[in-house]
Amino acid sequence: MAVHKFAIGDACLERSPEQDGEVFAGNVIDQRHGGPITIGFGRYGPHETLVERIAVHDVMVVLEGRLSVTTQAGTVEAGPGEIVYMPEGEEVTIRSFEQGAVTAYVTYPHWQEALQSKPRAGDGA
Amino acid sequence: MAVHKFAIGDACLERSPEQDGEVFAGNVIDQRHGGPITIGFGRYGPHETLVERIAVHDVMVVLEGRLSVTTQAGTVEAGPGEIVYMPEGEEVTIRSFEQGAVTAYVTYPHWQEALQSKPRAGDGA
Repeated sequence: MAVHKFAIGDACLERSPEQDGEVFAGNVIDQRHGGPITIGFGRYGPHETLVERIAVHDVMVVLEGRLSVTTQAGTVEAGPGEIVYMPEGEEVTIRSFEQGAVTAYVTYPHWQEALQSKPRAGDGA
Repeated sequence: MAVHKFAIGDACLERSPEQDGEVFAGNVIDQRHGGPITIGFGRYGPHETLVERIAVHDVMVVLEGRLSVTTQAGTVEAGPGEIVYMPEGEEVTIRSFEQGAVTAYVTYPHWQEALQSKPRAGDGA
């Protein structure tokens, strides 16, 4: 695996697992490439809500728009150029606002493998 | 460790190890926090060049400006919202252009620990 550059157009965005809202995720690097981390892009429509248990360590970089992430400990909000770190095992509610949002994400280990072993957990978006 | 949000203002930007140019990196999450990954922000002044062997798997998200990354295999260029993935062991030359650049990075494992064990390698910026 050599150095690679990715834009959101390189990601095949699919509906986030077990969600019926307009929340999409697409890996550009994952278990298929032999490395330890997954990299991808996410897209949230306006006023979407994603509730889940984070199955892996998940770093979300907001590229466009704005998201809030709520846990039992409270709510953080992030806009362009800001990072939300969601450690493994956290129960989170991610909400987009009227303009939706675009994110880049990095997970360790691979979120899709974690999802296969624990069917109700994780997504990586 | 709970969910956290970070902006570049949360990073203590320091000159990138073994460099004398205007290239700065600041971790916001690393080995001190007990998780498996390092997260941080980087800042490149105009027309800087960083040559190094990547000691860890390093994901760089360009937030502002533009960077090129050159390896033996060629050169990729990335602007705002684009990702450059630099797998462990790659020899890279990172160059900024006239407007400099701001990045977010995620490394697995922790780049500072890799740097301590191999003094001439890695940086994470």
